[in-house]
Amino acid sequence: MSLETMPLTEDRATGSKVHLSEEEIFAAHRGGKLSVGSKVPLASLRDLSIAYTPGVAQVSRAIADDPSLASALTWTSRLVVVVSDGTAVLGLGDIGPRASLPVMEGKSALFKAFGELDSIPLVLDTTDVEEIIETLVRLRPSYGAVNLEDISAPRCFELEERLIEALDCPVMHDDQHGTAVVVLAALLNAAKVVGKELGAMRAVISGAGAAGIAVAEILLNAGLGDVVLLDSRGIVHRDRVDLNAVKAKYAAKTNRAGVTGGIQEALNGADVVVGVSSSTIAEEDLARMNPDAIIFALSNPDPEVMPDVARRHAAVVATGRSDFPNQINNVLAFPGIFRGALDAGARRITPAMKLAAAQAIAGLAAPDLTADYIVPSPLDPRVAPAVAAAVAAAVEG
Amino acid sequence: MSLETMPLTEDRATGSKVHLSEEEIFAAHRGGKLSVGSKVPLASLRDLSIAYTPGVAQVSRAIADDPSLASALTWTSRLVVVVSDGTAVLGLGDIGPRASLPVMEGKSALFKAFGELDSIPLVLDTTDVEEIIETLVRLRPSYGAVNLEDISAPRCFELEERLIEALDCPVMHDDQHGTAVVVLAALLNAAKVVGKELGAMRAVISGAGAAGIAVAEILLNAGLGDVVLLDSRGIVHRDRVDLNAVKAKYAAKTNRAGVTGGIQEALNGADVVVGVSSSTIAEEDLARMNPDAIIFALSNPDPEVMPDVARRHAAVVATGRSDFPNQINNVLAFPGIFRGALDAGARRITPAMKLAAAQAIAGLAAPDLTADYIVPSPLDPRVAPAVAAAVAAAVEG
Repeated sequence: MSLETMPLTEDRATGSKVHLSEEEIFAAHRGGKLSVGSKVPLASLRDLSIAYTPGVAQVSRAIADDPSLASALTWTSRLVVVVSDGTAVLGLGDIGPRASLPVMEGKSALFKAFGELDSIPLVLDTTDVEEIIETLVRLRPSYGAVNLEDISAPRCFELEERLIEALDCPVMHDDQHGTAVVVLAALLNAAKVVGKELGAMRAVISGAGAAGIAVAEILLNAGLGDVVLLDSRGIVHRDRVDLNAVKAKYAAKTNRAGVTGGIQEALNGADVVVGVSSSTIAEEDLARMNPDAIIFALSNPDPEVMPDVARRHAAVVATGRSDFPNQINNVLAFPGIFRGALDAGARRITPAMKLAAAQAIAGLAAPDLTADYIVPSPLDPRVAPAVAAAVAAAVEG
Repeated sequence: MSLETMPLTEDRATGSKVHLSEEEIFAAHRGGKLSVGSKVPLASLRDLSIAYTPGVAQVSRAIADDPSLASALTWTSRLVVVVSDGTAVLGLGDIGPRASLPVMEGKSALFKAFGELDSIPLVLDTTDVEEIIETLVRLRPSYGAVNLEDISAPRCFELEERLIEALDCPVMHDDQHGTAVVVLAALLNAAKVVGKELGAMRAVISGAGAAGIAVAEILLNAGLGDVVLLDSRGIVHRDRVDLNAVKAKYAAKTNRAGVTGGIQEALNGADVVVGVSSSTIAEEDLARMNPDAIIFALSNPDPEVMPDVARRHAAVVATGRSDFPNQINNVLAFPGIFRGALDAGARRITPAMKLAAAQAIAGLAAPDLTADYIVPSPLDPRVAPAVAAAVAAAVEG
């Protein structure tokens, strides 16, 4: 179903203009959304003898003799565990692991639907970084990759960094890098629409949590002229003494002009604003931006500024919602990134692989580029294979 | 396919008379045997809005407000984790978690095929009882029940006992209790065939590992007259000083006649012998048993005594193999036991539930009882539903 043909009805309960009744949402979740099945037949004693005893003993013996065979002879080479402690779930905050599980089941379902990867949710009854790492290290023989999800900042940064060191497999916190990859993809095309070079643009990022930090990182890697981060206390700059370690690191890497103050000072002469803050941006502040501005108002369900208002001050506008043009949706990135990394046998998801993913997403929309079409639809079946191929090609030797 | 119509060919490589080629076994395992799928459609933006954001937020919020809703609105109420550390895998021993995974995948596939339960294998890169418990406690919000598998004795006894205390959900070590339940089911019917009362019979159990100890326990609970356990050093009795804590406990509960010595002394005047030892029993020793003896030679792939030899000294003979009559196969028990426990919302799998499972299995074969038909076929579709119903009915309160 395309955006154009989908019936849209205002529905405050869900924060979407797609009309969803409470009844149909709960009916779809009854008994959970995932199912595990066998890929081999189990209808005869002969079938059982192949898939279980005695036949399976030959396979186990082969892996015991040569552990490298485990990836080919078990499901681990295409199994992503979706891991959460439930501390930063959607816009709901710290609702705990049990309440986060429906989100993680949905994420696992998306991995299959878009990446043709198997995936299981593992929600943890601990928020301790040491204990989460220890648990995933102990479970390492069970899976092929780790998608961290809905884990609060700044713990998520340390957790991801240390897991990447501890595990010999792809690890990615999707709230950081999935978002960042799609933002970069959209920005690559938006820059073409307005005819600006990345190196000549200054971007403001409103929100210095998981998504904001990762967006800053990828925009710097992609060659943006300058990036200014804002947290709830204003612009992140070198002289602030109230910054956590991660923000302090980015204070040194961003804001080369040394701007201080709040959103107004940040937006003076800015070319791009990316909102990932769950706050609002006033129209008069947007008026301070450069001509042909680019506004990505990504908070869900309520964007920092509604698209009709934003368009008065910008040439290109995107949101996180499916009922407006230019939806910045992580599903464009994570299935293909993990698929490509697993296909290539990558041990890590590198900055080069993330840039390649963003370029692949942007490339699919490029031939039909308009101000209202800077990224493909989340349902575009070309996306995940293209991203997977680009990511696999970017894996170093 | 029935036992009668299945083509049988001797094949030493697999230890089975079902002919399996190495090629077809490895082909069936390529990429693993399990697949995770979505039970809800994900083809339109509307589908995504229900299964993922924004719709899923309502479900997460509902669980956050009332955690008891998690079992109805996630897959946990029917999800069994199959947990192993790879220390006692089939007859292969301590081959490690990676090499054990094909067995655990097969077990998960059997849970779906026979119990209509979802199941995922979790293999652990630790053999430390504390660490295994800690890991499963942290993962508790992710699953509904724990099937322990292929964990070596005597660690398996402490692990199961402590996990039952630590977790508010069904926990069962199948190598112990699955085996014990099917042995009891077979014995209930074998006793009818030979016309003996359980209370008048003396059983010898050759092997005091996971299966042997659990068989002793269930036979005592079922009212056997006496049970004598044998380990590699001979009969387990009160005066032995070389017993571990578990064997010492059973030295006090079994062998009321205080028999000492080895297999010969044990078999003098015995009515039943259950072999779970991976050793052999000599024909001349079997000749010491009472008339109308019952011999269950369960080691796989090589029974303690081959059925044609055993039948010279016994009225009823069973093995663990699919190519002889009376196959004692755990698949008769575990899918229905877990299904019944989860259906009833049981916190524990009690001795009463195990007895009920054994009686249900025996009951299905009872109408057609012969010396060569004391348990249903592992493929009999009536078994798991009957076991589940009996187990659920045996749940207290």
